[in-house]
Amino acid sequence: MPHIQLPEGLPGIVSGFAFRPETAKPMRELAEVLLRGPSSLSSGEREMIAMLVSTRNDCYFLQTSHRAAAAHHMGGDYALVDAVRFDYPNAPVSPKPKALLTIAAAVQKGGKSVTAEDVAQVRDSGATDLEIHDTVLIAAAFCMYNRYVDGLATFTPTDQRQYDAMGARMAAEGYVTA
Amino acid sequence: MPHIQLPEGLPGIVSGFAFRPETAKPMRELAEVLLRGPSSLSSGEREMIAMLVSTRNDCYFLQTSHRAAAAHHMGGDYALVDAVRFDYPNAPVSPKPKALLTIAAAVQKGGKSVTAEDVAQVRDSGATDLEIHDTVLIAAAFCMYNRYVDGLATFTPTDQRQYDAMGARMAAEGYVTA
Repeated sequence: MPHIQLPEGLPGIVSGFAFRPETAKPMRELAEVLLRGPSSLSSGEREMIAMLVSTRNDCYFLQTSHRAAAAHHMGGDYALVDAVRFDYPNAPVSPKPKALLTIAAAVQKGGKSVTAEDVAQVRDSGATDLEIHDTVLIAAAFCMYNRYVDGLATFTPTDQRQYDAMGARMAAEGYVTA
Repeated sequence: MPHIQLPEGLPGIVSGFAFRPETAKPMRELAEVLLRGPSSLSSGEREMIAMLVSTRNDCYFLQTSHRAAAAHHMGGDYALVDAVRFDYPNAPVSPKPKALLTIAAAVQKGGKSVTAEDVAQVRDSGATDLEIHDTVLIAAAFCMYNRYVDGLATFTPTDQRQYDAMGARMAAEGYVTA
């Protein structure tokens, strides 16, 4: 049961957004820019960063919905997405997204956990300043979204088909038109 | 030295905002709604939540600037603000803000750290659903801002007069006109 009286029948973060439209607006806009705005990183790569951070923050609603969004951006390849989710260092992805995931994993622990070695490695992989910036901010932002969802104890669906449909919608329509 | 090439001469989060205006816009708007928008919580109370979370995340730039903003909202009472910052359970504040600070301190650790006992206590103190919601979100949002500032290793001033001037500006002008 949620800690406050949230609108019923809405899952996870959507109930928080409906409860407080004034804060929902910038939170939705930030997700849209970070995950679907113009970028040299694909939306699939960016959704996997969101998913990894949400997994490490143990936020079931957001790890599962962004997992589905990532998969829908990548031709439905849930196997690849789960390889990243549970063991990205050994997942079949190229050096740049892997090095960016290392930065994201550090930010999930805390901003100061990003080491000079992490930064050297991500530069060696060819990542640009903007890509590093956005990776840090996606990871930081999901430390917010995750705490928002679980700090209010929002309703968490368990039906995987519901998440697959959510992910399809997130990938196709994004975060500002809900 | 920052991990990426940020505009020089700008402190802390301001350099990240200048580097990436597209993400700065919603991040500034969110801070404005949460800390200075219409609310039954005073801006001083809300800035102290931001300060407490930033302190526990060990983010020097944001704990020090929001400490100054809180003090400026409260007639310059840095002693009260520091009592909250370092030992809020024993600080001379009334039960409601104290119970809200307990919620914020839990969210800083992780969304699931908010206990039924914390929620019962905050309700007993007379806090409304909206006040609880906003406290959870302020705490969650500063887990983002803190990681953004330190995950990029932004430039951190040490001159306290600079922070006092920043806090005065934040209290008077807010977060969207910078």
